[in-house]
Amino acid sequence: MIKIAVDAMGGDNAPSEIVMGVNLAIKKHEDLEIVLYGDKEQIEKYLEKNDRVSIVHTPYKLDMGEKNPVMAIRGNKELSLVKAFSAVHDKECNGAVTCGPTQCVVVGAHMIVKKLPGMQRVALAPSLPCVGGKSRMICDVGANVELKPEHIEQITLFASTFLKKTRGVENPLVGLLNIGVEPGKGREQDRETFKVLTENPNINFYGNVEPTEILNTPCDLLVNDGFSGNLVTKTIEGTAKAIGQLLKENIKSSLGGKIGYLFMRKNLARFKKTLSSDEVGGSLLFGVDGVIVKAHGSSKAYAVSRAIELCMEGVNGGYIETMRKYLEEETNTENK
Amino acid sequence: MIKIAVDAMGGDNAPSEIVMGVNLAIKKHEDLEIVLYGDKEQIEKYLEKNDRVSIVHTPYKLDMGEKNPVMAIRGNKELSLVKAFSAVHDKECNGAVTCGPTQCVVVGAHMIVKKLPGMQRVALAPSLPCVGGKSRMICDVGANVELKPEHIEQITLFASTFLKKTRGVENPLVGLLNIGVEPGKGREQDRETFKVLTENPNINFYGNVEPTEILNTPCDLLVNDGFSGNLVTKTIEGTAKAIGQLLKENIKSSLGGKIGYLFMRKNLARFKKTLSSDEVGGSLLFGVDGVIVKAHGSSKAYAVSRAIELCMEGVNGGYIETMRKYLEEETNTENK
Repeated sequence: MIKIAVDAMGGDNAPSEIVMGVNLAIKKHEDLEIVLYGDKEQIEKYLEKNDRVSIVHTPYKLDMGEKNPVMAIRGNKELSLVKAFSAVHDKECNGAVTCGPTQCVVVGAHMIVKKLPGMQRVALAPSLPCVGGKSRMICDVGANVELKPEHIEQITLFASTFLKKTRGVENPLVGLLNIGVEPGKGREQDRETFKVLTENPNINFYGNVEPTEILNTPCDLLVNDGFSGNLVTKTIEGTAKAIGQLLKENIKSSLGGKIGYLFMRKNLARFKKTLSSDEVGGSLLFGVDGVIVKAHGSSKAYAVSRAIELCMEGVNGGYIETMRKYLEEETNTENK
Repeated sequence: MIKIAVDAMGGDNAPSEIVMGVNLAIKKHEDLEIVLYGDKEQIEKYLEKNDRVSIVHTPYKLDMGEKNPVMAIRGNKELSLVKAFSAVHDKECNGAVTCGPTQCVVVGAHMIVKKLPGMQRVALAPSLPCVGGKSRMICDVGANVELKPEHIEQITLFASTFLKKTRGVENPLVGLLNIGVEPGKGREQDRETFKVLTENPNINFYGNVEPTEILNTPCDLLVNDGFSGNLVTKTIEGTAKAIGQLLKENIKSSLGGKIGYLFMRKNLARFKKTLSSDEVGGSLLFGVDGVIVKAHGSSKAYAVSRAIELCMEGVNGGYIETMRKYLEEETNTENK
């Protein structure tokens, strides 16, 4: 049985969509148990009764526009996010899911779940839309704004371990997000990262990947400084949105287009689903001592259920224990 | 009459597509004169005779994979790119168009056309695909990898002047490409740039723009450090390409999709055209003392003709003279 803590009060559509997402996930997975943290009365309005779902009541929640996450989290142990993360830290739950604001999730995980010993930075790692039948992971996408080469190296090992243990990718191929493919491209820091990744025997380094290939690259994992990853994932989202609008306007502009649409609306719906960020289920927060999933603030029920499934996948994979051992060995070697 | 120098030998499809692009442009514009620089014999194979097109023969051209542009350009004054740029510097032509490699174009323009006095950096400025009937410019997209806030400020003034003089945008609205909309978002340098742009009375600053809104922002101009702009424009290209593939696969996967396609193929062709980078015609190189257009290395004839039109637009707008005066006044004020 996997037990997951869900912050019922995070995100733009809390608690209704969060709770309905829980309803979807719990019906689908018999080995799943869920604890919802938040306003009991509000949660019960949407919750379908199930023995495997329980509620821990708290009237406090983070403001989605919270400007000072450190103060807010330090100041109130009763926040729904804090309680959900504490359940992971205290090993009451195997992992946690939240749609709360990114910076609050990162700070909260740092303060409550805590980094694995020896880990320098944490990183947010979502999967990119699946193109050509291939799933690709990217990290970091905004837990940091300026990662150093040695941080990127450690995060790369972490993400590679996840892909090996959880997704059965034998020798994850790693690309460095950059403005050109040649080794000398980019800023000083990009050239340094290229060197560090090339020299690490535990990293299967492919080289630089230009964003023109971001959804077509043979790589399983794209790493970067945090700022770049945030920009490119948001650009994919923005472009997909704009293209959807363009296509719609275009189709509606003629009779042929309208008739054509009647025939291919199922295709277009499937097309839309492939690109939807809902499918991806959110980002894993790598580097902390627990499986934490941050879903999009605007997540609806289906996206929440996918985020819960991503968390289950992480728990089942047991990648955290592998990384803990690796980091321990590394520390021991350094101390010798 | 506008006289434009065209580097016939730059790009993956030189000289055939370049020359065929010239054929298209010259037929369309009676006020246009073109000088082609490159291998006369090869050019003549594709050139449709026209009194307004002439050839200046040279057997030398830059290698598309040139690793050391400075040495290559310094070492050979007879390169087609060098000759085309020299024609602009010597005021024999009003502007130049090339599909040569970005770094060679930037270096060549620096060394031959030269920066306007007082200008600190140059910047590549393409237009983004037109969505919602609105055209948006972005700069820099890779002439630099790390622009400082004061460089971005000067380039913003340059691009704003271009939009005013050439496209009739009265008070160009400027956004700073960033990972969040709030003023405190991003790296130290982004916060500093935000401050500098806010405080300049000659810049109509909107604030930060997240790439989720890159094709929907009300801004006329998006500025950034060069590295970020390169990443996001390449991500738009990569996403559009992947989406095109997905849509095609999806449509072909069912009978309904195939029938639907027959009805809407005109719509889909128009849709594809809107997103095509060919429409945009390339990037202007801001900051140098001449209208220089760098078109995509893979440009076909139509894209080349659009690049020539973009160069004409720049010449007609006379933005360089306005910026020259502005920079002179600024230097005078500083010296007082």
